Amino acid sequence: MSSSSAPTSGTLTYDQAGVNYDLIDPLKVSAQRAAAATASHLASHGFTEVAASRGESAYVVDVGPFYIASIVECLGSKALVADEMATLTGRSWYDGIAQDTIAMAVNDLITVGATPLVVQAYWAAGGSDWFGDAQRAQSLVAGWKKACEVCNVAWGGGETPALAGIVEGGRIDLAASCTGLINPKERLSVGDRLQAGDAIVLLDSSGIHANGLSLARKLVERLPEGWLTEIDPVNHPGLTYGAALLAPTVLYSPVTEALWQAGIVPHYCANITGHGWRKLLRHPATLTYRIHTVPPVTPVLAFIQQHAQQDDREAYSTLNMGAGFALFMAPEDAQRTVEIAQGLGIGARIAGQVEAGPKQLLIEPLGIRFGDDDLQLR
Amino acid sequence: MSSSSAPTSGTLTYDQAGVNYDLIDPLKVSAQRAAAATASHLASHGFTEVAASRGESAYVVDVGPFYIASIVECLGSKALVADEMATLTGRSWYDGIAQDTIAMAVNDLITVGATPLVVQAYWAAGGSDWFGDAQRAQSLVAGWKKACEVCNVAWGGGETPALAGIVEGGRIDLAASCTGLINPKERLSVGDRLQAGDAIVLLDSSGIHANGLSLARKLVERLPEGWLTEIDPVNHPGLTYGAALLAPTVLYSPVTEALWQAGIVPHYCANITGHGWRKLLRHPATLTYRIHTVPPVTPVLAFIQQHAQQDDREAYSTLNMGAGFALFMAPEDAQRTVEIAQGLGIGARIAGQVEAGPKQLLIEPLGIRFGDDDLQLR
Repeated sequence: MSSSSAPTSGTLTYDQAGVNYDLIDPLKVSAQRAAAATASHLASHGFTEVAASRGESAYVVDVGPFYIASIVECLGSKALVADEMATLTGRSWYDGIAQDTIAMAVNDLITVGATPLVVQAYWAAGGSDWFGDAQRAQSLVAGWKKACEVCNVAWGGGETPALAGIVEGGRIDLAASCTGLINPKERLSVGDRLQAGDAIVLLDSSGIHANGLSLARKLVERLPEGWLTEIDPVNHPGLTYGAALLAPTVLYSPVTEALWQAGIVPHYCANITGHGWRKLLRHPATLTYRIHTVPPVTPVLAFIQQHAQQDDREAYSTLNMGAGFALFMAPEDAQRTVEIAQGLGIGARIAGQVEAGPKQLLIEPLGIRFGDDDLQLR
Repeated sequence: MSSSSAPTSGTLTYDQAGVNYDLIDPLKVSAQRAAAATASHLASHGFTEVAASRGESAYVVDVGPFYIASIVECLGSKALVADEMATLTGRSWYDGIAQDTIAMAVNDLITVGATPLVVQAYWAAGGSDWFGDAQRAQSLVAGWKKACEVCNVAWGGGETPALAGIVEGGRIDLAASCTGLINPKERLSVGDRLQAGDAIVLLDSSGIHANGLSLARKLVERLPEGWLTEIDPVNHPGLTYGAALLAPTVLYSPVTEALWQAGIVPHYCANITGHGWRKLLRHPATLTYRIHTVPPVTPVLAFIQQHAQQDDREAYSTLNMGAGFALFMAPEDAQRTVEIAQGLGIGARIAGQVEAGPKQLLIEPLGIRFGDDDLQLR
């Protein structure tokens, strides 16, 4: 990343931020094909995979009395922002980073209807000395524990390798694996119930979450005061770009668990991460998603859009723009869903509906259309 | 690692190879304490942890009809050897590296009696271009798939992030998570059945496996022909140090599955990884482990011991020295266990027995004693 230089003005896109999916995608396709071929091994144990979960956010196996879902997820590059801000502010931001890492796994796992049960920590440092900074290490531990409390999961254990020569000195590669149950089995949500007429409920994000950080880090080069630039002096005096980026990702599993307690089973869910709102097109069916109401854009995302000189289409195709998680459900459950989320302190709104029609996402208040060509995940 | 220089002669120890456990251990202890406090969250889902699995190689939860075991494991630095050898030989060694990575997870998971079901891949590269080397990428995919076949597990999916700024350019951080079932529940093996009179069966390793690579990489600086040094010209002409190190880790789950089919339930298992034979002292009970027969030392380990000028005590305290996995069991099952392993192509032998007495490991043929002070894992 550091070898390329950012344009100092003009639109800054995700490609310019250094991630080249043209190089990664052939490997992904080949890995997905090889992985799919291994499903038959489950038969020797008397089990079967839920084939519809391939290509979804978590992998699901039918083990008889219930389904087991599992996943491993990477934080990405958000820790680099925490490192910069630690230097500038003299305190550790790794409590929030821990929550981000767990959110990456848990928010994906719950899309298939799973209750997260066990999280494992993967903390690979560039050397033993990373762990020698006690304040930072304790911040990571405390944040990890807190996020497990919010999600009601057991922290099973994990790995804390020192990987000099692989992970850069002074840095840490953070990931989380998560295992959960879909129990009872009618909670399974891999998309077979999604249909025209469903309501779309969007849950608010807290900021950038953990996707789009390459772009956000590139953008800082354009800001005269860098990470300490105030993003909204009038409404949020003192809130710096770095601190705003580091708002921890919302953990959505309390919402999906409360929905089940209330007897509400979503027809489908999408965790809005990489590819921004295009993730609303994740389901393979040919359906139109019509959005009539968009959530307020969090200040840091509005700031990024402005300074990266992105139009709405570019911004919504990359960033979550205020919506962190989408639930598709029977329309009669939608208002109650909004109230349950709000009761848990998470903003929510009925944002639109699913309709018969070509595969497309129409964000009507902004005049944006994304078609099938705009998202190729499988 | 590269900032410290190795002594050019004299004994080369693991500490000199650059991993400082004094810095990592306080974090580990604090993380373990925080993790243990989260176990109570399972109660809200109607489940409980198997407390004895804390501190063991995999975490186990009782979900009613069976137990679920889960784990995440890191490969470590073995990929750096593959990178060196790729430069020298012009071919990719990542098929073996893939097997090593899965072995790290699977061989730990089976110690608690679990049948591995699902593996997730964590492949974090230093940049998108890592995946652009098609030969290397396909080698990784093919090796991963093959190892899943050997272990009869489904490859559920995974992550392939490009982490420039965190993972070093041209490098990859490899890990695997694994979820399995202990089914029926009587297969649970967390040590409560271990007792005086049990036999100790050791399964052969294929070489260094994936532990001790920091030492092995340091040692190469002493070898005039480096990675291409022949380690045993008489018996293994042409076998280079690099190639010998890259022998893939043995996957032991076919053995534990075959044992169950034969009606044999081990009383305890230990995956012999970091800390070498001291891992035989893993169980918390006060018992003496008397070894009367040691396996042949694989050529690459004999070579390392010789050139690192380690005495037997140092070598057995760090490296597997020919034994990759230990099974503790009723003595009447031991011979049949050896035969089952050999039938699967994995060398095995009855190596000793468990006795009442102080906590110690006595390797009688070598006159080595390791006491309780020599291994502190919890």
